[in-house]
This record gives sequence, structure tokens and C-alpha cells, in this order.
Amino acid sequence: MKSATTLSQPELRQVPAREGEAMHELMRNLYPICRSITGAGTVETLKRLQKIIPLSILTIPTGTKVFDWEIPKEWNIRAAWIRNSRGETIVDFKNSNLHVVNYSAPVKAMVSLDELRKHVHTLPEHPDWVPYRTSYYHEDWGFCMSHNQLKSLEDDTYEVWIDSSLEAGHLSYGELVLKGKSQEEVLISTHICHPSLCNDNLSGISVAAHLALHLQNQKRKYTYRFLFIPGTIGAITWLAVNELHVRRIKHGLIAALLGLDGAFTYKKSRIGDAEIDQVAEYVLTKDNRANKIKNFEPYGYDERQFCSPGFNLPVGCLTRTPYGEYPEYHTSADNLDLVDPHTLAESLRTFIHILELVEQNRYYLNLRPKCEPQLGRYGLYSSLGGENNVKEYQLALLWALNLSDGKHSLLDIAQSSSLDFSTIATAAAKLHHAGLLRELSAPEHAIERV
Amino acid sequence: MKSATTLSQPELRQVPAREGEAMHELMRNLYPICRSITGAGTVETLKRLQKIIPLSILTIPTGTKVFDWEIPKEWNIRAAWIRNSRGETIVDFKNSNLHVVNYSAPVKAMVSLDELRKHVHTLPEHPDWVPYRTSYYHEDWGFCMSHNQLKSLEDDTYEVWIDSSLEAGHLSYGELVLKGKSQEEVLISTHICHPSLCNDNLSGISVAAHLALHLQNQKRKYTYRFLFIPGTIGAITWLAVNELHVRRIKHGLIAALLGLDGAFTYKKSRIGDAEIDQVAEYVLTKDNRANKIKNFEPYGYDERQFCSPGFNLPVGCLTRTPYGEYPEYHTSADNLDLVDPHTLAESLRTFIHILELVEQNRYYLNLRPKCEPQLGRYGLYSSLGGENNVKEYQLALLWALNLSDGKHSLLDIAQSSSLDFSTIATAAAKLHHAGLLRELSAPEHAIERV
Amino acid sequence: MKSATTLSQPELRQVPAREGEAMHELMRNLYPICRSITGAGTVETLKRLQKIIPLSILTIPTGTKVFDWEIPKEWNIRAAWIRNSRGETIVDFKNSNLHVVNYSAPVKAMVSLDELRKHVHTLPEHPDWVPYRTSYYHEDWGFCMSHNQLKSLEDDTYEVWIDSSLEAGHLSYGELVLKGKSQEEVLISTHICHPSLCNDNLSGISVAAHLALHLQNQKRKYTYRFLFIPGTIGAITWLAVNELHVRRIKHGLIAALLGLDGAFTYKKSRIGDAEIDQVAEYVLTKDNRANKIKNFEPYGYDERQFCSPGFNLPVGCLTRTPYGEYPEYHTSADNLDLVDPHTLAESLRTFIHILELVEQNRYYLNLRPKCEPQLGRYGLYSSLGGENNVKEYQLALLWALNLSDGKHSLLDIAQSSSLDFSTIATAAAKLHHAGLLRELSAPEHAIERV
Repeated sequence: MKSATTLSQPELRQVPAREGEAMHELMRNLYPICRSITGAGTVETLKRLQKIIPLSILTIPTGTKVFDWEIPKEWNIRAAWIRNSRGETIVDFKNSNLHVVNYSAPVKAMVSLDELRKHVHTLPEHPDWVPYRTSYYHEDWGFCMSHNQLKSLEDDTYEVWIDSSLEAGHLSYGELVLKGKSQEEVLISTHICHPSLCNDNLSGISVAAHLALHLQNQKRKYTYRFLFIPGTIGAITWLAVNELHVRRIKHGLIAALLGLDGAFTYKKSRIGDAEIDQVAEYVLTKDNRANKIKNFEPYGYDERQFCSPGFNLPVGCLTRTPYGEYPEYHTSADNLDLVDPHTLAESLRTFIHILELVEQNRYYLNLRPKCEPQLGRYGLYSSLGGENNVKEYQLALLWALNLSDGKHSLLDIAQSSSLDFSTIATAAAKLHHAGLLRELSAPEHAIERV
Repeated sequence: MKSATTLSQPELRQVPAREGEAMHELMRNLYPICRSITGAGTVETLKRLQKIIPLSILTIPTGTKVFDWEIPKEWNIRAAWIRNSRGETIVDFKNSNLHVVNYSAPVKAMVSLDELRKHVHTLPEHPDWVPYRTSYYHEDWGFCMSHNQLKSLEDDTYEVWIDSSLEAGHLSYGELVLKGKSQEEVLISTHICHPSLCNDNLSGISVAAHLALHLQNQKRKYTYRFLFIPGTIGAITWLAVNELHVRRIKHGLIAALLGLDGAFTYKKSRIGDAEIDQVAEYVLTKDNRANKIKNFEPYGYDERQFCSPGFNLPVGCLTRTPYGEYPEYHTSADNLDLVDPHTLAESLRTFIHILELVEQNRYYLNLRPKCEPQLGRYGLYSSLGGENNVKEYQLALLWALNLSDGKHSLLDIAQSSSLDFSTIATAAAKLHHAGLLRELSAPEHAIERV
Repeated sequence: MKSATTLSQPELRQVPAREGEAMHELMRNLYPICRSITGAGTVETLKRLQKIIPLSILTIPTGTKVFDWEIPKEWNIRAAWIRNSRGETIVDFKNSNLHVVNYSAPVKAMVSLDELRKHVHTLPEHPDWVPYRTSYYHEDWGFCMSHNQLKSLEDDTYEVWIDSSLEAGHLSYGELVLKGKSQEEVLISTHICHPSLCNDNLSGISVAAHLALHLQNQKRKYTYRFLFIPGTIGAITWLAVNELHVRRIKHGLIAALLGLDGAFTYKKSRIGDAEIDQVAEYVLTKDNRANKIKNFEPYGYDERQFCSPGFNLPVGCLTRTPYGEYPEYHTSADNLDLVDPHTLAESLRTFIHILELVEQNRYYLNLRPKCEPQLGRYGLYSSLGGENNVKEYQLALLWALNLSDGKHSLLDIAQSSSLDFSTIATAAAKLHHAGLLRELSAPEHAIERV
């Protein structure tokens, strides 16, 4: 594996266009589908992902209790429109699935303009855009349109028709496990419940899928678990099903909003100083761009569930510009033009960097803790003394020996020494090979850390 | 109870003049009395306070051992003057009790000007003011006068007469307990040993008395204990008498110097991060004025005793401009003109705000700690999704759920979330009512905190 | 003992020239000797030190295992030169022992200029200076000369001769113990392995020797252990021999590079907040000069061994300008002209200040922890009350009482109170004498600190 920290910003810019193009193509392929927290569109999305990665699709029946919630009725929609008294279709689901409030109950009715207005959502501040709205847990129906169109509607009687169904069925999600040497897991989770919106979250889906593709071909210390799940109810469902096994998760990242060319934003886990928090901050801070690190807050994506106090898992959230901080958020303007291949590739590379560092971060124990070992005997040290400067690599050997007491990871040592992580990791590998360090398995260092 | 944090600075300014007037009236009533650490003036002061609040007066006999001290002889004074050889009275206790060094032994003598000077205290830097001096623990006699008067004295033989007594008697103090739901106590203590000085400390006495009046009419979680005690020896006496029970004190405030219109100054308890320290800092910091927070130091008022290392109680000290930082401190210029009703009212309101927040601050336990509960089911959350901004109140619900793990108080949550305390408290109350939170009694969260 | 903190910078400047002169004289005496990590020159150095202080000389035979190392062969050298084909001696060990790579194996050979160059070390950036080089653990031979001289050498056949020996023998070091009241020790260690170099480290040797001389005449709480040892292998040897007893070391300082008139540089122990770290930082920071405090790093002098993770002793390193930060470092320009008597005296005084404060720093327990004691009864406090300002000394009494809870040393109290250490120490001594404080022996406060 290439070192997590050796790929500089200029190199990032040279990442082969191929990866970005492939992610954008996947996004174009999935864009037209009407996804939701349940239903055929979501299943279709998962099936198309199966053509790229060997995802399992899991289904949980309507009515199943999952903690404080239960799996809702499955929502499916075939068509929807509004027609005026002249029979002209003024809004049609065929043109954009955003036109229907997601999870709308079926309706077929004649309504006055006043009545219609009560069921129409617009964005007065962006009068040409159509908003995205949902009504998952309160049975209702509604349409979304541009504010300009709403203003242009005449006093008339309108026919509204939503050919949807809310019936017992299933909630579906995708799961992919890439086994590593250890049963300890890295969790990557992304939400799949949004319909024709690109940055939110076809970008997350595409990056997660290609991250899985990449990791398939790597030697892995950790086991990687990818979740492609509906937001909130999907995470709650997965946690309910896997309640007894979540302690395997040693590091986790939510992947979302990865297609806009803004600074990366890492939101820490509730723990606040979990290893994933330390690694993500280290990788993003080394980068020259003004990347942002935010403390945990209980609003956002599925870290809300993974970081609820009863689980408190080490799961952070990595996005570019966060939700609500770009005008196109949850509108029809979050379309294929908003997201470019190069940004997707850069997002993917950043995930890879972080995970490479997670893979390489170790705890070692110095097996010769009393005084320094005679490094020259192991071929690890220059033998001519008296020179003015010791090389970085030789310093790294000394740091790795001095702090490998079971309490400091390689990243801790890199940060204490202000040496590069890769320099420390290389030195530690040499010392390990020379028999001077022993790698600690997780329980040992974990016990010593408590 | 009105929320501790909803009364803004402009509202503070509109507090009914009635309270301020009543406190100033009490001050005028008590001003002429010659108080000391013992004696009739102190008892008379307590008796006048009994007309307002149902104070108990406790008396401890001279000679009683209290830790390293013992109760001194009781001091009483009837009259005192200095006369010149022409029989003119040049200084008279009748005009101001500050003219006699507090605790002066009786004396009747003819003295030269040189001899007199050895027993006269003045303030050269404020030549028109009379200083306040005491000699509690070293038997002596003395007078205080203006420096200008001292300078004008002719070489003459003076007759000095102090008609005082130092005899076995009692030390007296006042105590008032307002029972609350809990046996845990909030202590409010103020010193009553100063004679005709207004800011120090008729202001503290008046504010404490009216705080008791106010709390009498409130539902109280805590039991409130008010002490009206002579400085130092009074606090030591009370602690000696109550040594076995002081652990009931969960929060405490010394009330002093509350009549000058300067910034509030909160001096932290020796613990430094006690809940009362956190609350007082929060309330004062939210206020726009440049209020000051100081670390504990072992000089000052009776926090010196409450915070001695063998007790180390969570007792802070709330004043306006601190002792020694205004020129009138311990002089005849600390009179009725220095203190105005409005400032007293503002001081009282600030005590009330702090105590309201102490009352409202709770530890809750999330009873659905795994994932978020489905708030919509409890009528606690808007059901239409997709909007750009979540309201503060909804954020507060999520914060209260996420951090109610027995380790975070509502104030901790307010500070973590940067939401207003009252918003968090309201959200927590709703969650509690919905059965999602359980209130922890003190021992539970205390145990978890250790 | 004079208080550690009462000697100000101007006073430092007035330290009797005698001490500085004596140290410079010792340096001149030792300068010509060819020292190394073993051999006659090092023994001769120790013997000359014995004329000043009652040092023991200890010897460990070649081949002895000391942790990961073993005692090397003993190196001795009698003569060495390079001659050209005209029989002219162009470099001679007699002129400077730096001309031979320290630990060079014996050689007698005729070599071409090209071959000679492979064995010659120069400093192109300082073409008139001769570098200092060693080859302890890789058997080799070599010469050092000025770069200008190397450039002037003609194409010729040169005769090289090094009359040295590498044979079974001993490693020698000096040790001096000055017993104190306690078996707890302060360690002072300095390296003696460098040949004709003054600042590095005849300055450290001279200061350490005169520090021992000074301490011989003082009442000592602690036992002082001085080590005059070859760098690295000497410290490792001493630790191996004394492995079971190192826990007696409560404070330690490496003494090195003390002759250059730069700011003092204190490098903290690996522990980082050991008492010696706190004291050294306090003493150096009080001084007006821009003294530097550095965190531990595992490169430097013998703190590398004392602070290896298996020992982790509270040993810091006190130098002036650190190694590598002055151009003359490890060159022939580090000679008698570089170091002046006054700087040596100042360095000695700074060691004395630090150790005086270490001696005076105590933990006391307040024997009247409940409320303040009545200080007036003990003659410790002014009895006339009401004055505006309390004196520093009276504040110090209150601070010493309030924080003497077994968790705060006198230095902790000085730092909490912002009062001078000497003021706090004086107040505590008075309180101790009055029976109000009990001095805690080390185990008591240590146990309470854990």
C-alpha cells in the first residue's frame, strides 16, 4: 500500500481521470431512479450497484420493531400529475420525481387552486427550482414545483393524481463485507434514500462503491463493512439487527455530499478523540486546503444513530461542503451538472488516504525498553559519530523505540515527534523486522489505554 | 419559576422599583446600629430582620472552643467621646459609631495630644473621611476621626472616655432554613458584624433577607439555609456547631458588597469547577456587562472558612466591585448615599437568576439510548422532512437525548450545544414528560461522576 | 541556604570571579588529554578530578554485557601522523588529538592521495577548522584535517601511521555520592568522552565538579550522585550495574555545553511534568533572559538512556546553546578561547539555584484544616483589622494553609498564588515552626499523588 501521507495535493490533482469518470457514470445511471426509504426504486438502485460490487441485499418486513421505531409500509409510485381544467398537464412525475412529496399517499381528486396550494411546496428564494420534500411518518400527499410556476397558476379546478401505494412490504438495504486479517471492522455507511439528487447523495453512493472496489484489491488488516442504507430508519434497522456485534466496529465513516468542490469537512464522533477522529484530522490538516474539523453534534446523517449514547461508536462523518451550506441542497438544482468527476476522484482519494493510515497505525512494544538498543548491530544506524545532524530516519528510529510503550500508536509518535507518519511507520517496520518491537494486538493496547 | 436565562439586561433594568426601595429602607433602618462580632447591636439587627423573615437567633457563650478559636468576650458600648480642656466634645460616638475602634476596651483618662495621637486612626489620603477600624483579638482602645480634624487639634490635655464593656456573654447569629423537596442544601451567608457601613455590608444583609423573602414563595427543589453571621468567628462557629452536617451543602454563595453599581464579581470556590461555579459563570457571562470571574484565593469573606481544606465546600462569593477596589471601602463615606435602590434590586435579581438555574439544572438518563427515539410518535417533532434548517427546539431535543447519559447536566448540554439553557431545559422537560428521560437523583449522577 | 529565587540577574553577574576562574583552570588542565569512551586519557581525566573532589573510579571489563550492548575493547593511542614522500609531517596527533578519528584502529601504510582522501574528514563549510569524528563500533581508521590543508595536498604517496591499540581492557567512569538526610537521590551526570573540545564537554565536567564542591559544604536533604561517564555506553553501563536501585533517583539533570554565553536551554524529562521539570522551568522563567524550555525528544545526551521507556526517570538536561546550534560544535574551534570564566560561573549558579529550590520544595499537611487557625494567637498575623491591604506575607500564610493538603508542593502553591517561592517557603516554615503544618515525607505525598 502506498503510504497514506505521501500523496500530496498536486498528486491528488493528477489522479487518473478514469476513477472520476466511472463514478460520474454510475451517478448518471442512478440519477433517474425514484428512491425512497423503501420501495422498488431503492431495490433497483441496489441491484445496479451489484453489477459493480458484490453487495448483499437484505430485506426486513414492514411492521418489524427496531428499537423505538418500526419498519414502515413500503412506498411505491408509478405516476403522478396535476392537470388544469383544459386537460393540460402542468406538473408530471415523469419529468422529475422531485415533483411528488416522497412517500405521498395515493390521491385522485378535483381541487380548487386554494386547496391545491395547501399541498404544493415551492422555494420562493429560488423561484426556478423545485424543492425536495418528504412525509415518511405522517400520511399525506403533496407536490413540489417551482415558485414561478405556482405563481402562474390560474384560478381553476385542478385534477391531481398520485398513483402510489403504501402497503406491507419491506425495507431493503445493501451490505458488503470485505474480510481482513482481523475481525475488527471499519464501517463505511452511506444513505441511499434520496431520489434524483446528485450531491446528496449519489456522490456518497458512488464514492463508497468505488472505495469498496479499491479495497477489494488491497491486503487488509481490518474487515471492511459497507452499508448502503436508507437514512435514519436504515441505520436504526441495521443497528437493531446487529446489536450484539457492533463492538467489532473500531472505526467508522459516514460518506455523504462528496461531489461539490468545497473544502472537506470532518465531523468528529461523539467520543471526540477516537482513533478515526485523530486520523481524519491528521490527514485533512496535513493537506494545504482549508479543511474543516467540527465537533460532534446530534444532528446530521446516520452518525446520529451510530453515535447515540447507547452505542457511542467511533463513527465520524466525512463530507465536502456540509448540508444546508450550499444553495442547491435539497432542490432540483442538485443535479448532474453540479457534480464533476474530478471532485469525486479527489473525495475517493481522501477516503483512501484516511483508511490507509488507519490500516498502518499500530501499537508496538519496545522489547529492549531499558536504554537504547545498539542500533548499529542491527544495521539500522550509521556508525561514524560526531556529525552535526542526525537524519530524520534515525530520529524516527529513536522516537519509535522511546514511545513504543503500549500507550502510543504510530500516529501518536508522529505527532509527538513532528515527523511524518510515513517516516515513523517505516522506522517502526524496520525495528519490528529486527526483533526490537513487538506489534500489540488490539486487546493489549486497549487494556493498557483504559 | 421563570427561566433563569430569559430575563435580559433591559428587563433587569425594569425590575419593579418596589424591591429596591424595600431593601434600601431596611438598610436605612439598620444603618445607625453599632454592630460588631458580638454585642447588643448585632442582636438588635437580627431582631429587626425577624420582622421581615422568620430568622432564628442562636447564641453561643463566651469561651466556647470552636476549632482553633474560642468565642470572645461580648463587647457592648454605650457612649464615647474626646473632650478638650475647654470641655468641648470634639469627637462623639453618638454622631458616628465609626469614631470608636470596634471592640475598644473601656477607658477614662486625661491624655496629652501626643498620647492621644497613638490611639487615633485617620486616612491621610481622604482627609475628610473617618476610617473603620477593629481590634477584636488584641485588647486596646482607640478612636477614628478625619485627618483634617486630627491636624486641627491643639496641643492640649484631652479627656477620653469610652463607656464600653468586654465581659462574658454570647456570640449571636441568625439562621433561616427554607425546606425544599430535597435535604440537599443551598447556603447563602452574609456578614453582619460591620457597624454604620452601607455597601459593606448592609447591602449584603438586605439582599440576602429579600432573597429569603422571594424564595419563601417559590417551589423549592433544594433546602435553602441563610446565615446572618459575624465575619470569620461567626462562620467558624457555625461550622463547628454543624460540622457533621456540612456535606448537605451542595451549593453556596457568600453575599457581600452588593450596593455599588459596578460589574458583578464572582470568586470561584476552592474546588474551582463546582456546579455553583459553572452556573454563576454561565449566568454572569451571558449578561452583556463586563462581569468578572476570579479564581479562588484564601483571602476575602467567609468563603475562607467554608473553603478551608478540611471542608472544601462548593461555596463561591458574589459581590459587585470587590473590597478594597473602591475608595469608600471601610470609611465613613460608605454611607446611605453610596448605595441606590436600583443597584440593590439588580443584585437581588442576579442571585435569583443563579439560584433558578441551580434549581433547574438536572441530570437525566435517556431511557431509549440506542438510536434516536421516533420523536414524531410522541408529538415532539415535525414530520415533514427535507427542509433546510431544523429549529432550535428540535436541535435541543436531540442534544438532550444524546448527552443524557448521567454524566452531563442540562447546563453541560447547553454549553456543549451552544443552545440556551432554557431551550435545553424546556426540551428535557418535554422528553421527561414523554417518558423518554428519567431524572437522576443526586446520588446516582454523583456516583457516576466520580 | 540562600533562597533559590532571591539571586537576581544583576547579582548573578556579580558572582565572584574566583569560581569561574577555578573552573576555567580545570578546563585548561584537562584540555590536552585525548579522552574517549575508554582508555588511559579518560582514566587520567578522572584522576585529575580526584584532586578536587573525592571521586571513585569504577572499571568494567571489556566484553561485559550491559543490556543490548557490551563493553568495547579499550582504545589507547600513543602517536599518529601523515608524512609526504619528502618525509615532511603534514598532520600530527601531537598537535591536536582531533587529527585522528577517535577509536581508530592501528595502521601503518603507504597510500596514494586518492586512497588517503577516503580516510580524511574535513569541514568544507569551515575550511580552517578540523572536525571531530569517532568510529567506536565499526573498526576503521581515519584522520581529520582542515579543508584548506586537504585541498593543498599534492598527488603523492603518503605514509600514514596510527600507533593505537584496541585490546581487552576496561571502561572507566567516576562516581561521587554526597549523602543527605534522605536516601532519595538527585543525579547529576556529565559526559567525559570528548577529547580536546571545551564547551563540549569540559564545560559540563568543570561545572559538575564545582557543583559537587559547593554541595559538599551544604546541609543536604537529598543524597547527590555525580556521574562522570563516557556518553551512551557509560550511561548504559551505569544503569545496568545499578538497575535495581534507580528508583532512588527523584530528580536528575544532565550537565553539558555550559560554557557558551547563550540562553539556558532546559529539555524536559520524558515524564514532562516531573518535579525537576517544574522547578527548572520556574527558575529559568523567572529570569529575565529568553531561556528556552523544550519538550523531551529521544536524541541528545544521556537523558536518552535515563529516559528510555524501561527506566523513564525524572532526568532533564540543562545546557546553554544546544548541540548543533553553534558553528564550533564538534570542531577544533571549540577550544579554550570559546569558553569564558564568567559564563561558567553563571552556569554553576543556575544549577545551584535549581537544586536549592529542589531542596526547599516540600509537601506539608495543614494540621488545622477546618477553618483558618487563629494566626494572631501564634504571633503570625497583625491584630488590627479593617485595613485596606493585607501584606504579601500574610497572604502567603493563608495560601500555605489553604493548599497544604498533601497534594500541593510549596512550588505548586507559589504558582497558584502568584507569590514568590521564597515568600511561600518562609511562610510555610513559620507555620511549621508554630505547629500548624506537618512536613510530609516523600512516600506520603507520593501515595496521595497517585
